[in-house]
Amino acid sequence: MAIGTALTRLLGITHPIILAPMGGVAGGKLAASVSQAGGLGIIGGGYGNAKAGYGGKDFMEEQFRAAGNAPVGVGYITWSLTQFPELFDQAMERAPKAFFLSFGDETLFASRIKAACVPLICQIQDLDGAKRALDAGADIIVAQGTEAGGHGKSGRTTLTLTPAVADIAGKVPVVAAGGLSDGRGLAAALMLGASGILVGTRFWATPEALGSDNAKQLLTKARSDDTLRTRVFDIIRDLDWPEGYTGRAIANDFSRKWHGNERALGQNLKDEAEAYWTAARAGDTSKAVVFAGEGLDLIHDIKPAGEIVREIATDAEQLLRTQAGVAVS
Amino acid sequence: MAIGTALTRLLGITHPIILAPMGGVAGGKLAASVSQAGGLGIIGGGYGNAKAGYGGKDFMEEQFRAAGNAPVGVGYITWSLTQFPELFDQAMERAPKAFFLSFGDETLFASRIKAACVPLICQIQDLDGAKRALDAGADIIVAQGTEAGGHGKSGRTTLTLTPAVADIAGKVPVVAAGGLSDGRGLAAALMLGASGILVGTRFWATPEALGSDNAKQLLTKARSDDTLRTRVFDIIRDLDWPEGYTGRAIANDFSRKWHGNERALGQNLKDEAEAYWTAARAGDTSKAVVFAGEGLDLIHDIKPAGEIVREIATDAEQLLRTQAGVAVS
Repeated sequence: MAIGTALTRLLGITHPIILAPMGGVAGGKLAASVSQAGGLGIIGGGYGNAKAGYGGKDFMEEQFRAAGNAPVGVGYITWSLTQFPELFDQAMERAPKAFFLSFGDETLFASRIKAACVPLICQIQDLDGAKRALDAGADIIVAQGTEAGGHGKSGRTTLTLTPAVADIAGKVPVVAAGGLSDGRGLAAALMLGASGILVGTRFWATPEALGSDNAKQLLTKARSDDTLRTRVFDIIRDLDWPEGYTGRAIANDFSRKWHGNERALGQNLKDEAEAYWTAARAGDTSKAVVFAGEGLDLIHDIKPAGEIVREIATDAEQLLRTQAGVAVS
Repeated sequence: MAIGTALTRLLGITHPIILAPMGGVAGGKLAASVSQAGGLGIIGGGYGNAKAGYGGKDFMEEQFRAAGNAPVGVGYITWSLTQFPELFDQAMERAPKAFFLSFGDETLFASRIKAACVPLICQIQDLDGAKRALDAGADIIVAQGTEAGGHGKSGRTTLTLTPAVADIAGKVPVVAAGGLSDGRGLAAALMLGASGILVGTRFWATPEALGSDNAKQLLTKARSDDTLRTRVFDIIRDLDWPEGYTGRAIANDFSRKWHGNERALGQNLKDEAEAYWTAARAGDTSKAVVFAGEGLDLIHDIKPAGEIVREIATDAEQLLRTQAGVAVS
């Protein structure tokens, strides 16, 4: 039993479920688990340097090694990748199953990815972004709503962006992203015109994910209403995000102190940064960022990624078969 | 052919589609059209006074008359209704098909509504609100995401709030609200665990709706990316909304000038208000507010409300029957 869509056919996968290339979380082991269960795992290269506590060429070598022979893709933050051309080459040498670009101008890399016949996945946050990605030749468009954990924008939600992008994407498959943690989310996304979903936070709460155990435990306990979109974790980590982007994270002592007081944080950066990195190294989630999406209410446990893939697929299939349990007469 | 759910059974309606009680828009004629087409129309009493350009006892008399014998409900802004007890009595005397309360403490009215065996519909924006409404005895919970046009909150989206509320609502039907304009939205909401949808903006773009023709025309042309959540239209109209609420509207010259400069607007209130109301009376949408939800991208024409009800229902049915066109094997 399986749900077949334009996405599963294009990528040659069993279930229309893609692992979000979460920086510092979606390593080779997690990506491999998702792919082996029938989805598509994507290693998150993040910024491409070690500024945020992970990244760089050695880090990626290690992750590719951890993925073994599993067919996995690679994802980078586009505006940051431009500063590390050697990482683009490293990824392409691995003949990734797909190349995932988010947050920036994909045209800088699109032609080389497409020339190598690697499927180009572009993540966008509004209709103008979708049009640009389609013009650049994206093979798959990921429509990311503000529900998403980690970086994104606040303007649009998954629910309205997905059908609007589907209406202009023609035959290019659209993948819904943001707030999707279970089979209900996959079934709903398919109804909205998507061919699959991108799942992030739900896959962080797995033994295979990178990141501290404290962070994973917190994901199972925190609620959606505890998350916020903020720039304070970028400021403290000295990450120069372009205008308009924020990161959705679980509110903690650090965000409660500085969110809304960004200017003061900038003025105290040196002292605060030292304390921040000390806390981050110790896995202290009262200070260190734990990015998480608005689907948190639906996440209650840590379990293997393969189990999550199968559960989402099975539950969505069941909803589709039974027409969500409503009586269509 | 019809989609039968816990909501259609509870209300005795044909299609699981409820008209949002939009103040100054959802009058008797529109409510009657939605009910006659098989949904549930609800007259929007708004604030209950004429401060926002409509409202009060005579206004409601006129709207009840316009609805004729059609079975319709009544909706009010809860925090404002407390100031106008005579309007509550007026509504109850009409034995409405349902009483819809949003934005405030429903316990003040719940017992009297329930004692009269009128179904109590409570609209909430987060899980704490849902718990409170369930405790108050709500017969139906409307989970309103930030996508919604008009007033609401920015914290939660329809996509994640709906399943989270469904998980705690037990047998109480959950209705999804915010950003839902077509059959894809209804089908997706059912997959998320809702028993129906609340539709606002799509029903404003109808001949039956109150409001200026200019506003309706704008709805068919503006895009979702043109909307924003703001307080400037409340400030200028001297409406004292509780902390946390904003209204989603189409950006115009007025919002571009004052959004982010709310303090300055407060200091220039007298002069600005006069100019604002003059523009509003003239139907000048460059200055007057046009509330609209994030589903705007899916709205391209003005057509009768009954046609919209039937289209949403038919398209959703088709998606459910065909399993959204994906191959479930």
